[in-house]
Amino acid sequence: MPAPKFSADGVIAILERIRARHPLVHCLTNHVVKNFTANVLLALGAAPAMVEHADEAAQFAAMADALLVNIGTLDEPQITAISRAIPSANQAHKPWVFDPVAVGPLTIRTQFAREIVALRPTLIRGNASEIIALIGQTARGRGVDSGDDTETALAAAQTLATLTGGAVLVTGPVDYATNGTETVACANGHPLMTRVTGVGCAQGAVAAACCAVADSPLAAAVAAATLMGVAGDLAARVSLRPGSFTEALLDSLDQLDADILRREAKLS
Amino acid sequence: MPAPKFSADGVIAILERIRARHPLVHCLTNHVVKNFTANVLLALGAAPAMVEHADEAAQFAAMADALLVNIGTLDEPQITAISRAIPSANQAHKPWVFDPVAVGPLTIRTQFAREIVALRPTLIRGNASEIIALIGQTARGRGVDSGDDTETALAAAQTLATLTGGAVLVTGPVDYATNGTETVACANGHPLMTRVTGVGCAQGAVAAACCAVADSPLAAAVAAATLMGVAGDLAARVSLRPGSFTEALLDSLDQLDADILRREAKLS
Amino acid sequence: MPAPKFSADGVIAILERIRARHPLVHCLTNHVVKNFTANVLLALGAAPAMVEHADEAAQFAAMADALLVNIGTLDEPQITAISRAIPSANQAHKPWVFDPVAVGPLTIRTQFAREIVALRPTLIRGNASEIIALIGQTARGRGVDSGDDTETALAAAQTLATLTGGAVLVTGPVDYATNGTETVACANGHPLMTRVTGVGCAQGAVAAACCAVADSPLAAAVAAATLMGVAGDLAARVSLRPGSFTEALLDSLDQLDADILRREAKLS
Repeated sequence: MPAPKFSADGVIAILERIRARHPLVHCLTNHVVKNFTANVLLALGAAPAMVEHADEAAQFAAMADALLVNIGTLDEPQITAISRAIPSANQAHKPWVFDPVAVGPLTIRTQFAREIVALRPTLIRGNASEIIALIGQTARGRGVDSGDDTETALAAAQTLATLTGGAVLVTGPVDYATNGTETVACANGHPLMTRVTGVGCAQGAVAAACCAVADSPLAAAVAAATLMGVAGDLAARVSLRPGSFTEALLDSLDQLDADILRREAKLS
Repeated sequence: MPAPKFSADGVIAILERIRARHPLVHCLTNHVVKNFTANVLLALGAAPAMVEHADEAAQFAAMADALLVNIGTLDEPQITAISRAIPSANQAHKPWVFDPVAVGPLTIRTQFAREIVALRPTLIRGNASEIIALIGQTARGRGVDSGDDTETALAAAQTLATLTGGAVLVTGPVDYATNGTETVACANGHPLMTRVTGVGCAQGAVAAACCAVADSPLAAAVAAATLMGVAGDLAARVSLRPGSFTEALLDSLDQLDADILRREAKLS
Repeated sequence: MPAPKFSADGVIAILERIRARHPLVHCLTNHVVKNFTANVLLALGAAPAMVEHADEAAQFAAMADALLVNIGTLDEPQITAISRAIPSANQAHKPWVFDPVAVGPLTIRTQFAREIVALRPTLIRGNASEIIALIGQTARGRGVDSGDDTETALAAAQTLATLTGGAVLVTGPVDYATNGTETVACANGHPLMTRVTGVGCAQGAVAAACCAVADSPLAAAVAAATLMGVAGDLAARVSLRPGSFTEALLDSLDQLDADILRREAKLS
């Protein structure tokens, strides 16, 4: 049973702080989703910036309010930039989110992802296969799709959160947020969100924005799951086709408010 | 006159297999169109993945169901990644599609494109200028626009298909698919498709998805031309402005079914 | 007070030439906005191309009608490509636009931006902080947002224009275009344009298209500010949510004509 801080009221408080403070989120993310990620952050009220040169990424990680590391299209320059940006964020006490896209079946990123985890991300966001692979177990993922049930990844997530001292958000039909001891189920969201590229990746950026203003990594994880999930629920009432759904998702993020979140949030 | 396998029924069979099997398409494509390409594949029912590190691209090309190679924003790391991914796909007997964007006027890519052709792509998709340039003739292309009539490129396409043993799809107001001996004209599509960036590039990704499930490269080429073309025809009935047309195009890909294809397909 | 050439009629003449000649704009721009930038150019009637390999970028800069240099996600390969493309454009007497994204707080790009300015861009487009930083003063910018009033940057813009012999467009709630001696205020545009990523960056590409057909850099700057601003005004009448506003912005660029511009342009 969740503590009251993981109710809709906690999510609302985080949304209101995002809209008041416009946290600047430094996104080291994959090529496929950069535009959509920036638009999701802007629609929510946060400020995106993608600074990719290794020297500048290190410099900027200390200036921004939060950092997102997403390895979906990892290449050598990005390995260098990420390796310099994370210690810079850590040193400046800035929160950062790690999204271990497609970790498991692919060798380079799986090895690099474990090095990243050792740097203790504030929040890790991944599907069941990715979370299982991060702690070294064999998962059934193929590419970016998860082959494992979210529920079976929960134990792995709790282990991982205990290891990093942060939160882990396991995404799936129901998202689970955990800090290793407390676990919250977030049941918002619509299957169409998996028919649009980058919704999950953008959720990682939203999680970074939440970390910049939240009282705890777990509260940020719950907020990220709920904000994206409720926006998806609203968008699916506008359209069930993927092109118009995408537009409605951005409009819904802009439209989110306390009344909507109180009515729609499914936390337990 | 086309064989019956190149009727709407052949296209329908391919679409149904894509929706049943969700072929995983490894896209080594240009920066401009990655997001749109992924969304086109998802809207159709296929699964996109962009894995770009050379080591991982080689590894992933053997795991995915098909590979797309599009050189629109070719750079040195991509030359390396492509050079390793194609042999990996060939060795794993996975089909792959080559889209020789802007080959002809630009030196580096034109030389590299001829090396790629020698690796025998399952399917080549290009406009008239690009297809003509690929076999070493002088074309009139400037950048990504074609300066040659599709019809005049047909002879070049037939030569090219004979050379590779695969299919060639020459795009234009009417698309022509050929395997060197048989040729099918696909007359679907709308001029607005040239007012949205990446429609042609995304058709290459659709062609890769089709190759993963089709009985022949030629059948895949016909299906790719027809699926994108009919979706464009439907979208143009929703909007004749480019922003809303783009959204409608994604919605239309999702909406395609046997009835629509039987009614709309223009194959001869 | 503007000369008559900076009336709506001047903007209309430039739009009509863009639609008649489809100038090919070579965009060396940031990863976040490539797709949107291409779609903005296409919606307006221009032709986009992103050619990024340093050898090809140098070759293509001489073939295209105008070049855009935007350093939003600057990295080492792009520094090389830009360093070769600009002299090539200069040698071929092709106009080029420089967008100094986030210059000021970030070291590498600020140093590089000053080298670029020394190559005398036809047109510089930036927000107040960026323009101030370009001439070596301390600005208050943080990331891509401007911390300075557009008006206070006007003196810096005039200095900069005198230095380059081209035009400078300072963007903000009111955009100011100057060639160092004449200054035009362009008051079109809507706050929602800052809630969609890449609108400013795409304006730089539009400015490059305008440079390709305009009689002077200043006329191109005025046209770029007015075309994007009026399209934004029209789009805000369709939707005040960011997802649907983006689509409406592209539709509005396509819809622009002499009557609309004569009615809507706010130049002084």
